[in-house]
Amino acid sequence: MGENRFLHESHFQRVHFARADAANALTSEIERLAASRVMVIASISKYEIVKQLTRNLPVVRHYHDIARHIPLPVAERARSAAATCQADALVAIGGGSATGLAKAIALTTGLPIIALPTTYAGSEATAVWGLTEGNRKTTGSNIRVVPQSIIYDATLTVTLPVPDSIASGFNALAHCIDSMWGPRADPIDRMYAAEGIRALSRSIVAVAADGMDLNAREEALYGTYLSAVAFSSAGSGLHHKICHVLGGAFDLPHAQTHAVVLPHVLAYNAPAAPVAERQMAAAFGSESALIGLEQLRRSVDAPRALRDYGLSEADIDTVIPDILDHAPSDNPRPVTFGSMQALLNAALNGDDPHVPSEEEARHGRL
Amino acid sequence: MGENRFLHESHFQRVHFARADAANALTSEIERLAASRVMVIASISKYEIVKQLTRNLPVVRHYHDIARHIPLPVAERARSAAATCQADALVAIGGGSATGLAKAIALTTGLPIIALPTTYAGSEATAVWGLTEGNRKTTGSNIRVVPQSIIYDATLTVTLPVPDSIASGFNALAHCIDSMWGPRADPIDRMYAAEGIRALSRSIVAVAADGMDLNAREEALYGTYLSAVAFSSAGSGLHHKICHVLGGAFDLPHAQTHAVVLPHVLAYNAPAAPVAERQMAAAFGSESALIGLEQLRRSVDAPRALRDYGLSEADIDTVIPDILDHAPSDNPRPVTFGSMQALLNAALNGDDPHVPSEEEARHGRL
Repeated sequence: MGENRFLHESHFQRVHFARADAANALTSEIERLAASRVMVIASISKYEIVKQLTRNLPVVRHYHDIARHIPLPVAERARSAAATCQADALVAIGGGSATGLAKAIALTTGLPIIALPTTYAGSEATAVWGLTEGNRKTTGSNIRVVPQSIIYDATLTVTLPVPDSIASGFNALAHCIDSMWGPRADPIDRMYAAEGIRALSRSIVAVAADGMDLNAREEALYGTYLSAVAFSSAGSGLHHKICHVLGGAFDLPHAQTHAVVLPHVLAYNAPAAPVAERQMAAAFGSESALIGLEQLRRSVDAPRALRDYGLSEADIDTVIPDILDHAPSDNPRPVTFGSMQALLNAALNGDDPHVPSEEEARHGRL
Repeated sequence: MGENRFLHESHFQRVHFARADAANALTSEIERLAASRVMVIASISKYEIVKQLTRNLPVVRHYHDIARHIPLPVAERARSAAATCQADALVAIGGGSATGLAKAIALTTGLPIIALPTTYAGSEATAVWGLTEGNRKTTGSNIRVVPQSIIYDATLTVTLPVPDSIASGFNALAHCIDSMWGPRADPIDRMYAAEGIRALSRSIVAVAADGMDLNAREEALYGTYLSAVAFSSAGSGLHHKICHVLGGAFDLPHAQTHAVVLPHVLAYNAPAAPVAERQMAAAFGSESALIGLEQLRRSVDAPRALRDYGLSEADIDTVIPDILDHAPSDNPRPVTFGSMQALLNAALNGDDPHVPSEEEARHGRL
């Protein structure tokens, strides 16, 4: 028991776990909001299921003009559409892009959102919004964009192919691990993150074995929710700063990048974050957090090398300055050019993560 | 991984852990609310410290007319006072009675509350309000009464004598344990409750050893917060129904009653709630939850027998019908006259809790 000094903010949110019952839960949430003009945001590819889910709602607009990373013109078109149809509630059905577009509308209008997630992106449980202008992604945190309610229905996720599910699950796992040392990480965040690791580590394996296993799909959604609550509160740690820079510079696939980079950041930070390390090891049910994560990666054949996505050694050196600019100043270990070069080269080649000696960890060298 | 079907509601709240810094945190919270007419609710016995804490605030009224269980006339006088002084924010400094009175005002006025707890009652983190009319206590749950912010400052709790601290800590522990099988208990509640058990079980021992140990005092407040969030969401389980009936009928001391009854309810329910049992045992760091709780009780010499508070065997039989009326219908084991008689007689005499055989647990007999 040491001193704890922090400010933790929790949000109002209603979270349904309603397997095979999303339509009823959605109807009751729309009634609760007394909404009479619903704008539904979902990819056109989901139109059949969306029609089923919203059949009892007063829908005034089915909106499909969605894009990854929410380019500003896409957001502005959606805001106009919401104004034109006089929407009084937004229903987002899909992954991070559908929820993100609803948040872009909510940011300027204050309209309430009901989110029905179909991936493990977690955006539905955070106050984080993002917009891309040209090559520049701006993100922020605002309580206005927190969805009023989430409806998790595992049957909506079985269409997510197993490899995408694994990558998406690792994305959620990255939220958990990075929440352990994010800039605002507090004991409550670490509790959420540890429970998230517990749920995700076993459900990812089970989903990999059988993509139709609804118990596993539901457990993965549960872990996703926990990971997102932790991450929204703790803020981006070193892992997300690295992935953000890599993703922006080289247009790498989001979830896969997380899966590759995560163990390297874990190996780098964990020796200097003993409380987090103990909590994570216990959550993985392993001797150490890194052993737990590596076992999980092997068992589901997770992506291992950034080289597989076209990255080269020369590319890496060009982005390190940007990583150093964005790295959290209170990272458990100092972030240096040399340490990031070694870390990223290991991630590039799919090498085993370098576990620092006690001496190295103490002095902050990789 | 089995099926999970639940609705969990989280609340907006700002939670400060601000050791020796409550006055600054309070000032910043009042500024954040843009409040200009603050009504401060605290016992007159705390006047010196309250004056210090509120010295930078626009206080229009220091209010001291507080009573346990919030009798309706007390609540009505406080509501009138708030109206007369045109308060735009309430600051409650104290235990469950000070916070409870602020909630009684908020219930009818919607005024925001900032709570500075000085005990481990936990009311500051719940949506639960209570009012007593004659001998009848009415309780309810309303999001309006959830304090906007909590300021936990361990230095404010060192004046709580060690025996009262132990009893109050067991009260918080009872919130955790009963949240494991409350009527709306969900996996998120159990996560909070388990982390609460972890924090409380070690901090109660440390506070018992040294009431001035600020790390221990702070950890106890942390456990209190977690216990209250869990309890507010899960609702009263069997333990609280029993204690509520006993307390109402015989005016027993609140926290002490909890400390005595708790292991008996735990022994009764745990064998039929294996997930909760595993989580609690892990949180206690014990072979079983009951062994963990009993070790804790012994190590701090917690109250053991209701007889010590004037209760008799004849008294017990008179309240069992009322307990049967109030017991949650989905308690892990059926609640019968005979089982409650045996449970309460053991609590009366300070006997070891009866651990049911597998056969008994399966068939719901004590």
